[in-house]
Amino acid sequence: MVSTGVTEVKTFSDEEFFNLVDENTSLFIDELGETVAIQSVSAELEEHLDDVIQMMEWASTRIQKLGGTVQMVPNPAATSDRPLPPILLGEFNTNDVSKKTVCVYGHLDVQPANIEDGWDTEPFVLTENDGKLYGRGSTDDKGPALSWLWIIELHQKMGVELPVNIKILFEGMEESGSEGVFEVIHTEGKPGKFLDDVDFFCISDNYWLGKNKPCITYALRGLAYFQLSVQGSTQDLHSGVLGGTVHEAMTDLIALMGTLVDSSGKILVEGVMADVDPVTKEEEALYDTIDFDMEEYKEDNGIKSVSDKLLHDDKKSLLMHRWRYPTLSLHGIEGAFSGKGAKTVIPREVIGKFSLRLVPDQDPKKIEKLVVDHISTEFMKLTSPNKMKCEMLHGANAWISDTKHPNYEAAANAIEKVYNGVKPDYTREGGSIPITSALENATGMNVLLLPIGACDDGAHSQNEKYNISNLVNGVKVLGIYLHELGKIKG
Amino acid sequence: MVSTGVTEVKTFSDEEFFNLVDENTSLFIDELGETVAIQSVSAELEEHLDDVIQMMEWASTRIQKLGGTVQMVPNPAATSDRPLPPILLGEFNTNDVSKKTVCVYGHLDVQPANIEDGWDTEPFVLTENDGKLYGRGSTDDKGPALSWLWIIELHQKMGVELPVNIKILFEGMEESGSEGVFEVIHTEGKPGKFLDDVDFFCISDNYWLGKNKPCITYALRGLAYFQLSVQGSTQDLHSGVLGGTVHEAMTDLIALMGTLVDSSGKILVEGVMADVDPVTKEEEALYDTIDFDMEEYKEDNGIKSVSDKLLHDDKKSLLMHRWRYPTLSLHGIEGAFSGKGAKTVIPREVIGKFSLRLVPDQDPKKIEKLVVDHISTEFMKLTSPNKMKCEMLHGANAWISDTKHPNYEAAANAIEKVYNGVKPDYTREGGSIPITSALENATGMNVLLLPIGACDDGAHSQNEKYNISNLVNGVKVLGIYLHELGKIKG
Ligand SMILES: [Zn+2]
Ligand SMILES: [Zn+2]
Ligand SMILES: [Zn+2]
Ligand SMILES: [Zn+2]
Repeated sequence: MVSTGVTEVKTFSDEEFFNLVDENTSLFIDELGETVAIQSVSAELEEHLDDVIQMMEWASTRIQKLGGTVQMVPNPAATSDRPLPPILLGEFNTNDVSKKTVCVYGHLDVQPANIEDGWDTEPFVLTENDGKLYGRGSTDDKGPALSWLWIIELHQKMGVELPVNIKILFEGMEESGSEGVFEVIHTEGKPGKFLDDVDFFCISDNYWLGKNKPCITYALRGLAYFQLSVQGSTQDLHSGVLGGTVHEAMTDLIALMGTLVDSSGKILVEGVMADVDPVTKEEEALYDTIDFDMEEYKEDNGIKSVSDKLLHDDKKSLLMHRWRYPTLSLHGIEGAFSGKGAKTVIPREVIGKFSLRLVPDQDPKKIEKLVVDHISTEFMKLTSPNKMKCEMLHGANAWISDTKHPNYEAAANAIEKVYNGVKPDYTREGGSIPITSALENATGMNVLLLPIGACDDGAHSQNEKYNISNLVNGVKVLGIYLHELGKIKG
Repeated sequence: MVSTGVTEVKTFSDEEFFNLVDENTSLFIDELGETVAIQSVSAELEEHLDDVIQMMEWASTRIQKLGGTVQMVPNPAATSDRPLPPILLGEFNTNDVSKKTVCVYGHLDVQPANIEDGWDTEPFVLTENDGKLYGRGSTDDKGPALSWLWIIELHQKMGVELPVNIKILFEGMEESGSEGVFEVIHTEGKPGKFLDDVDFFCISDNYWLGKNKPCITYALRGLAYFQLSVQGSTQDLHSGVLGGTVHEAMTDLIALMGTLVDSSGKILVEGVMADVDPVTKEEEALYDTIDFDMEEYKEDNGIKSVSDKLLHDDKKSLLMHRWRYPTLSLHGIEGAFSGKGAKTVIPREVIGKFSLRLVPDQDPKKIEKLVVDHISTEFMKLTSPNKMKCEMLHGANAWISDTKHPNYEAAANAIEKVYNGVKPDYTREGGSIPITSALENATGMNVLLLPIGACDDGAHSQNEKYNISNLVNGVKVLGIYLHELGKIKG
């Protein structure tokens, strides 16, 4: 290279970067194994708090060895009775104010796992077999989270400057509701604080729709979770002794729950569909090319051997009802007889649990009112003297982003480069990832969901795994994504 | 008394017997305390099998000391893995073939009890306070069962011959479904066996309708217990990820359960009311004088502070719906979310539990067909591809006896004598006492239900008690009842 008189800026071509990733794969696998061995189970803090803390400290040390700075924020939800792991705020600052800043989120805690649950290998020993890395946390979310550190390390090895400033938000409580993290996001989003100068967010903590084709996720459904209680008495009664003389709470509750949704999945609460975002041509077009196998879906979800029937027969309808239409599910009843066998109880008070998945532009507050009004009207029809109460326990807005946003285009470009011209599927998730809205609301900046793992990784199941191909291509995609972000001007 | 040349037959007047009972009350209480201290909890055999056996052996020894004979029948339902207490067949034979034979039934096992459940005193220490004897089993059923032995002892003390031959059937598994007892009753009812020569049966194991007025119970409702399962998948699903794409089992189950009964208690299964025995004038008249306080009933059953409303506003309607009309209760759902809080599960398979209380002349087999057909028809309407199964788990006929039968008249006479001319109420029970039909079916002989305890004794609750007045008058009534039976000729 001819000297131009300015400081030489080392860089590498996509090809060079890809080769580097390939050459270092076994190092990545070793390090993933090192972290999988740390049993950072946040749902079992009595036993594993030390492990979760150790995992967070492992990441802190690793970041600092790479030259980053780290601030360990004491968990604001912790109490003296209930200590909680800290939240990690890390930073790799290029000291180049012209560069954009991306903040990446990941979680280092994992779901519980015991070999007795049906694991074929020790869950906390990363085990390679047939191109797959088995182990708890391999795909959710240690593999994806560590990828950012591996990318930074490759840059350092080659003396290549990072194309963007990188901020890291790692937590250790995601599998237990991200306790304390929302407060930290709220605080750090304020002027002059850690998240204030972030231009883009990227979260890699969901999965491809299928096993083969990469995707980008641009929308999540929200939630309105209800509890509906009916009380008939202050004590459980015996149906032989009292049956025929009392207004039974279960009769009322079953009648009310039966007015919410029909067998075809249609929500019967008037007004609920009013604000549902209409389908645009643009959105509709996204479904055509999507890699989604209905037969595999039935097989994977245990439907095949039972009815072999889904609510919708074509891919587009099915995905739309999974992603962009609200649904209502009846989850169960608290207080009723729920054991095996026969018990002739008239339960004193029964509490039905049901929830709606919300979509853009449904407002949980408005849904709450519609549902509570509906239940009140239906309860009036019963002319029952029992005590009834319907309330929303949680409400969360749906989230949707813009697939044309530069953050999304950077990711799409990266995927095309790594996957030889394949354009990603644009997917939604039926469930919620509350951190997404939290980051967007705290900063007003765009959030990208960039999954790396495959649909069959079994994030919360036995035999969780991470394909080596996904690990390798994931590092490549996330690395190129940073370079694509680096090209964004203004 | 002038010698008549024949062997003098010693007897005593009612008054003498009453005095004897009063004089011996403290001995009865001591002995009741001795048996209450034996923790014969049949629902907790792992811990208490030895206690139940000890209790049965206590009774055996006691009967033999009184000069009776005892046969301890090994429990036919016992296995090597699951030993069970024996069944006690005792006998006091006067060797006078002209005398009638009565068989009395009682159970010596008790409900579980722990002081932590809210007992004010140690449950297994009989504690006297304000005329009440607190302790587990005091009223259910050790007090009534032991009464027979006390009566026999009083006869012996005074050298008075028993007016009837007495057979005793005591068991130790009643609170756990009387395991093994039905087989024994069936076997012993055969020609030449223990129950074959019994003329009358008497069971004292239920309670007065109120707190003050004695009663005789002449009918019990039967039972048809159903389990209705709907399966949508082989695995629980997440409502966020899958909601909107699958036929949810809970939606179908709730819809089906909602077609069974309305909020006013009306059974919606067609044909169920067809065979219900019409109300005769004679039956109707029985309700007029019945001692039953609706306000106390609401209070005692925890209705007062909730709705203060029963299904029927007048005593007669209420009691009829409690005793002589069928009812349908929804008990609960197995397999659905039943915990506290919020869980967004789509349960794979849910099993609804409901039961009907049957009355004369409903046939459980016919009810089974009506219910299964009804559910099938309603399920067809749902056009759901889920797997549905409705089956009856248990069926038991209602039982009704004849209040004019000499066995009943003997009891009524005894009550009038003890209670200074008060005529008993004739009551039914809404629940079932399966031993009743079993004894009647095995022998074809009349069965009398003769309660001693008061409605507020709390048989299965904390602070179970037995009023000393009920104990004393109970011994008197049962004793005079035997003498009244002794007068029956032919
Ligand atoms: Zn995750
Ligand atoms: Zn997870
Ligand atoms: Zn009993
Ligand atoms: Zn009992």
